Amino acid sequence: MDKKISKEELEKSDVFTPHFDDKGLVSAIAQDNNSGEVLMLAFMNEEAIELSLKTGIVHYFSRSRQKIWKKGETSGQTQKLIEMRVDCDQDALLLKVEQLGKGAACHTGRKSCFFRTVKGEKLIVKGKRLFNPKDVY
Amino acid sequence: MDKKISKEELEKSDVFTPHFDDKGLVSAIAQDNNSGEVLMLAFMNEEAIELSLKTGIVHYFSRSRQKIWKKGETSGQTQKLIEMRVDCDQDALLLKVEQLGKGAACHTGRKSCFFRTVKGEKLIVKGKRLFNPKDVY
Repeated sequence: MDKKISKEELEKSDVFTPHFDDKGLVSAIAQDNNSGEVLMLAFMNEEAIELSLKTGIVHYFSRSRQKIWKKGETSGQTQKLIEMRVDCDQDALLLKVEQLGKGAACHTGRKSCFFRTVKGEKLIVKGKRLFNPKDVY
Repeated sequence: MDKKISKEELEKSDVFTPHFDDKGLVSAIAQDNNSGEVLMLAFMNEEAIELSLKTGIVHYFSRSRQKIWKKGETSGQTQKLIEMRVDCDQDALLLKVEQLGKGAACHTGRKSCFFRTVKGEKLIVKGKRLFNPKDVY
Protein backbone atom coordinates (compact mmCIF):
# COMPACT_ATOMS: atom_id res chain seq x y z
CA MET A 1 0.00 0.00 0.00
CA ASP A 2 1.14 3.50 -0.81
CA LYS A 3 0.26 5.56 2.26
CA LYS A 4 0.57 8.72 0.18
CA ILE A 5 -2.62 7.97 -1.74
CA SER A 6 -5.23 10.45 -0.57
CA LYS A 7 -8.79 9.59 0.43
CA GLU A 8 -10.06 11.28 -2.72
CA GLU A 9 -7.69 9.31 -4.93
CA LEU A 10 -8.74 6.03 -3.28
CA GLU A 11 -12.36 6.87 -4.06
CA LYS A 12 -11.91 7.99 -7.65
CA SER A 13 -9.17 5.61 -8.65
CA ASP A 14 -9.64 2.87 -11.23
CA VAL A 15 -6.58 1.12 -9.79
CA PHE A 16 -6.96 -1.50 -7.06
CA THR A 17 -4.84 -0.26 -4.15
CA PRO A 18 -6.20 -1.91 -1.00
CA HIS A 19 -5.77 0.30 2.02
CA PHE A 20 -4.39 -2.16 4.59
CA ASP A 21 -4.54 -1.36 8.30
CA ASP A 22 -1.53 -1.31 10.62
CA LYS A 23 -1.66 -5.12 10.74
CA GLY A 24 -1.65 -5.38 6.95
CA LEU A 25 -5.33 -6.41 6.75
CA VAL A 26 -8.57 -5.36 5.13
CA SER A 27 -12.04 -6.55 6.14
CA ALA A 28 -13.73 -8.97 3.75
CA ILE A 29 -17.48 -9.65 3.72
CA ALA A 30 -18.57 -12.89 2.02
CA GLN A 31 -22.01 -12.81 0.42
CA ASP A 32 -23.82 -15.69 -1.27
CA ASN A 33 -23.86 -14.76 -4.93
CA ASN A 34 -27.25 -16.37 -5.52
CA SER A 35 -29.34 -15.63 -2.44
CA GLY A 36 -27.59 -12.41 -1.38
CA GLU A 37 -27.29 -13.76 2.16
CA VAL A 38 -24.34 -12.32 4.07
CA LEU A 39 -22.30 -15.32 5.15
CA MET A 40 -19.39 -14.06 7.23
CA LEU A 41 -16.89 -11.32 7.91
CA ALA A 42 -13.19 -12.09 7.95
CA PHE A 43 -9.87 -10.50 7.01
CA MET A 44 -7.46 -10.61 4.10
CA ASN A 45 -3.85 -9.61 3.75
CA GLU A 46 -2.18 -8.95 0.42
CA GLU A 47 -1.30 -12.63 -0.08
CA ALA A 48 -4.87 -13.76 0.66
CA ILE A 49 -6.21 -11.34 -1.95
CA GLU A 50 -3.68 -12.52 -4.52
CA LEU A 51 -4.36 -16.22 -3.82
CA SER A 52 -8.12 -15.69 -4.01
CA LEU A 53 -7.92 -13.83 -7.33
CA LYS A 54 -5.40 -16.29 -8.79
CA THR A 55 -7.09 -19.55 -7.75
CA GLY A 56 -10.75 -18.46 -7.71
CA ILE A 57 -11.04 -20.03 -4.24
CA VAL A 58 -11.38 -17.68 -1.27
CA HIS A 59 -8.39 -17.41 1.06
CA TYR A 60 -8.49 -15.28 4.20
CA PHE A 61 -5.86 -14.38 6.78
CA SER A 62 -6.56 -15.96 10.15
CA ARG A 63 -5.88 -13.46 12.91
CA SER A 64 -5.98 -16.12 15.62
CA ARG A 65 -3.54 -18.41 13.79
CA GLN A 66 -1.64 -15.56 12.09
CA LYS A 67 -1.49 -17.33 8.76
CA ILE A 68 -3.21 -17.77 5.43
CA TRP A 69 -6.50 -19.57 5.83
CA LYS A 70 -7.87 -21.37 2.82
CA LYS A 71 -11.50 -21.33 3.88
CA GLY A 72 -12.91 -24.86 4.03
CA GLU A 73 -9.57 -26.64 3.85
CA THR A 74 -10.49 -28.72 6.92
CA SER A 75 -14.29 -28.70 6.71
CA GLY A 76 -14.73 -28.89 2.95
CA GLN A 77 -16.85 -25.72 3.07
CA THR A 78 -14.78 -23.87 0.46
CA GLN A 79 -15.93 -20.70 -1.26
CA LYS A 80 -15.70 -20.13 -5.00
CA LEU A 81 -15.00 -16.49 -5.72
CA ILE A 82 -17.46 -15.08 -8.25
CA GLU A 83 -16.72 -11.38 -7.88
CA MET A 84 -14.58 -9.16 -5.66
CA ARG A 85 -15.70 -5.61 -4.96
CA VAL A 86 -13.93 -2.88 -3.03
CA ASP A 87 -15.49 -0.03 -1.09
CA CYS A 88 -15.03 3.72 -1.53
CA ASP A 89 -11.94 4.07 0.64
CA GLN A 90 -10.55 0.66 -0.36
CA ASP A 91 -10.30 -0.72 3.17
CA ALA A 92 -13.09 -3.29 2.84
CA LEU A 93 -13.86 -5.99 0.29
CA LEU A 94 -17.14 -7.60 -0.67
CA LEU A 95 -16.72 -11.17 -1.94
CA LYS A 96 -19.58 -12.59 -3.93
CA VAL A 97 -19.15 -16.32 -3.52
CA GLU A 98 -20.61 -19.70 -4.22
CA GLN A 99 -20.56 -21.53 -0.90
CA LEU A 100 -19.46 -25.09 -1.69
CA GLY A 101 -19.50 -28.21 0.51
CA LYS A 102 -22.76 -28.45 2.42
CA GLY A 103 -23.34 -24.73 1.86
CA ALA A 104 -22.36 -23.75 5.38
CA ALA A 105 -19.95 -20.84 5.81
CA CYS A 106 -20.08 -20.95 9.60
CA HIS A 107 -17.98 -23.40 11.60
CA THR A 108 -21.06 -23.97 13.81
CA GLY A 109 -22.65 -25.68 10.81
CA ARG A 110 -24.97 -22.88 9.73
CA LYS A 111 -25.07 -21.29 6.31
CA SER A 112 -24.28 -17.85 7.73
CA CYS A 113 -22.30 -16.81 10.79
CA PHE A 114 -25.05 -14.21 11.36
CA PHE A 115 -27.55 -16.80 12.57
CA ARG A 116 -28.80 -14.91 15.64
CA THR A 117 -31.07 -11.87 15.79
CA VAL A 118 -30.69 -9.32 18.59
CA LYS A 119 -33.87 -8.77 20.59
CA GLY A 120 -33.11 -6.42 23.46
CA GLU A 121 -30.44 -8.22 25.47
CA LYS A 122 -31.38 -11.60 24.06
CA LEU A 123 -30.41 -13.50 20.93
CA ILE A 124 -32.83 -15.58 18.89
CA VAL A 125 -31.41 -18.31 16.68
CA LYS A 126 -32.58 -18.09 13.06
CA GLY A 127 -30.24 -20.35 11.11
CA LYS A 128 -30.41 -24.12 11.26
CA ARG A 129 -27.39 -26.38 11.12
CA LEU A 130 -26.42 -27.89 7.76
CA PHE A 131 -23.80 -30.07 9.42
CA ASN A 132 -22.81 -31.08 12.92
CA PRO A 133 -19.42 -29.55 13.77
CA LYS A 134 -18.52 -32.68 15.75
CA ASP A 135 -18.64 -34.68 12.53
CA VAL A 136 -16.31 -32.30 10.72
CA TYR A 137 -13.64 -30.84 13.01
CA MET B 1 -17.48 -6.67 27.50
CA ASP B 2 -16.63 -9.50 29.83
CA LYS B 3 -13.32 -10.84 28.54
CA LYS B 4 -13.84 -14.01 30.52
CA ILE B 5 -16.59 -15.22 28.20
CA SER B 6 -15.15 -18.09 26.20
CA LYS B 7 -15.40 -18.51 22.45
CA GLU B 8 -17.77 -21.42 22.94
CA GLU B 9 -20.01 -19.39 25.26
CA LEU B 10 -20.13 -16.50 22.77
CA GLU B 11 -21.26 -18.93 20.09
CA LYS B 12 -23.89 -20.79 22.09
CA SER B 13 -25.17 -17.91 24.18
CA ASP B 14 -28.67 -16.51 23.87
CA VAL B 15 -27.43 -13.32 25.55
CA PHE B 16 -26.16 -10.41 23.45
CA THR B 17 -22.61 -9.76 24.67
CA PRO B 18 -20.79 -7.95 21.86
CA HIS B 19 -17.11 -8.80 21.82
CA PHE B 20 -15.54 -5.34 21.39
CA ASP B 21 -11.97 -5.00 20.17
CA ASP B 22 -9.23 -3.13 22.03
CA LYS B 23 -10.69 0.14 20.74
CA GLY B 24 -14.16 -0.75 22.02
CA LEU B 25 -15.55 -1.42 18.54
CA VAL B 26 -17.28 -4.11 16.55
CA SER B 27 -17.63 -4.20 12.76
CA ALA B 28 -21.11 -3.52 11.38
CA ILE B 29 -22.24 -4.48 7.88
CA ALA B 30 -25.29 -2.62 6.56
CA GLN B 31 -27.43 -4.56 4.10
CA ASP B 32 -30.51 -3.32 2.25
CA ASN B 33 -33.39 -5.24 3.79
CA ASN B 34 -35.31 -5.41 0.52
CA SER B 35 -32.73 -5.97 -2.20
CA GLY B 36 -30.09 -7.73 -0.08
CA GLU B 37 -27.43 -5.39 -1.48
CA VAL B 38 -24.51 -4.86 0.90
CA LEU B 39 -24.33 -1.11 1.42
CA MET B 40 -21.34 -0.40 3.63
CA LEU B 41 -19.06 -1.56 6.41
CA ALA B 42 -18.55 0.65 9.45
CA PHE B 43 -17.98 0.36 13.20
CA MET B 44 -20.08 0.57 16.34
CA ASN B 45 -19.20 1.07 19.96
CA GLU B 46 -21.52 0.19 22.84
CA GLU B 47 -23.26 3.57 22.69
CA ALA B 48 -23.86 3.33 18.93
CA ILE B 49 -25.47 -0.09 19.39
CA GLU B 50 -27.68 1.20 22.19
CA LEU B 51 -28.72 4.31 20.26
CA SER B 52 -29.50 2.27 17.15
CA LEU B 53 -31.64 -0.23 19.05
CA LYS B 54 -33.38 2.49 21.06
CA THR B 55 -34.15 4.92 18.23
CA GLY B 56 -34.47 2.50 15.31
CA ILE B 57 -32.10 4.76 13.34
CA VAL B 58 -28.58 3.48 12.68
CA HIS B 59 -25.75 5.16 14.58
CA TYR B 60 -22.13 4.20 14.01
CA PHE B 61 -18.90 5.25 15.68
CA SER B 62 -16.72 7.34 13.40
CA ARG B 63 -13.09 6.28 13.75
CA SER B 64 -11.81 9.35 11.91
CA ARG B 65 -13.84 11.77 14.04
CA GLN B 66 -13.76 9.57 17.17
CA LYS B 67 -17.38 10.18 17.98
CA ILE B 68 -20.90 8.88 17.52
CA TRP B 69 -21.99 9.20 13.91
CA LYS B 70 -25.70 9.31 13.23
CA LYS B 71 -25.54 8.11 9.66
CA GLY B 72 -27.17 10.62 7.30
CA GLU B 73 -27.31 13.47 9.80
CA THR B 74 -25.64 15.80 7.29
CA SER B 75 -26.65 14.17 4.00
CA GLY B 76 -30.17 13.04 4.90
CA GLN B 77 -29.24 9.47 3.91
CA THR B 78 -30.33 7.95 7.21
CA GLN B 79 -30.81 4.22 7.75
CA LYS B 80 -33.85 2.72 9.43
CA LEU B 81 -32.85 -0.36 11.41
CA ILE B 82 -35.06 -3.32 10.54
CA GLU B 83 -33.05 -6.11 12.16
CA MET B 84 -29.71 -6.50 13.93
CA ARG B 85 -27.88 -9.80 13.75
CA VAL B 86 -24.67 -10.87 15.44
CA ASP B 87 -22.14 -13.39 14.21
CA CYS B 88 -20.90 -16.57 15.88
CA ASP B 89 -18.14 -14.97 17.94
CA GLN B 90 -20.12 -11.75 18.54
CA ASP B 91 -17.50 -9.40 17.08
CA ALA B 92 -19.45 -8.43 13.96
CA LEU B 93 -22.99 -7.17 13.39
CA LEU B 94 -25.21 -7.40 10.35
CA LEU B 95 -27.70 -4.53 10.13
CA LYS B 96 -30.66 -5.05 7.87
CA VAL B 97 -31.74 -1.53 7.00
CA GLU B 98 -34.04 0.56 4.94
CA GLN B 99 -31.85 3.16 3.27
CA LEU B 100 -33.76 6.44 3.46
CA GLY B 101 -33.10 9.79 1.74
CA LYS B 102 -32.22 9.22 -1.92
CA GLY B 103 -31.33 5.62 -1.12
CA ALA B 104 -27.58 6.21 -1.21
CA ALA B 105 -25.50 4.79 1.63
CA CYS B 106 -22.19 5.97 0.12
CA HIS B 107 -20.99 9.53 0.53
CA THR B 108 -19.92 9.43 -3.14
CA GLY B 109 -23.63 9.37 -3.99
CA ARG B 110 -23.94 5.67 -4.82
CA LYS B 111 -26.35 3.25 -3.23
CA SER B 112 -23.51 1.01 -2.02
CA CYS B 113 -19.95 1.84 -1.03
CA PHE B 114 -18.99 -1.36 -2.89
CA PHE B 115 -19.53 0.22 -6.32
CA ARG B 116 -16.31 -1.02 -7.96
CA THR B 117 -15.43 -4.52 -9.12
CA VAL B 118 -11.83 -5.74 -9.02
CA LYS B 119 -10.52 -6.90 -12.41
CA GLY B 120 -6.84 -7.77 -12.05
CA GLU B 121 -5.22 -4.54 -10.92
CA LYS B 122 -8.06 -2.43 -12.27
CA LEU B 123 -11.40 -1.31 -10.85
CA ILE B 124 -14.57 -1.11 -12.89
CA VAL B 125 -17.35 1.17 -11.65
CA LYS B 126 -20.71 -0.58 -11.36
CA GLY B 127 -22.86 1.75 -9.27
CA LYS B 128 -24.30 5.00 -10.60
CA ARG B 129 -24.70 8.14 -8.53
CA LEU B 130 -28.06 8.82 -6.89
CA PHE B 131 -26.91 12.28 -5.81
CA ASN B 132 -24.00 14.60 -6.48
CA PRO B 133 -21.86 14.91 -3.34
CA LYS B 134 -21.20 18.57 -4.18
CA ASP B 135 -24.89 19.30 -3.73
CA VAL B 136 -25.01 17.64 -0.32
CA TYR B 137 -21.82 18.17 1.67
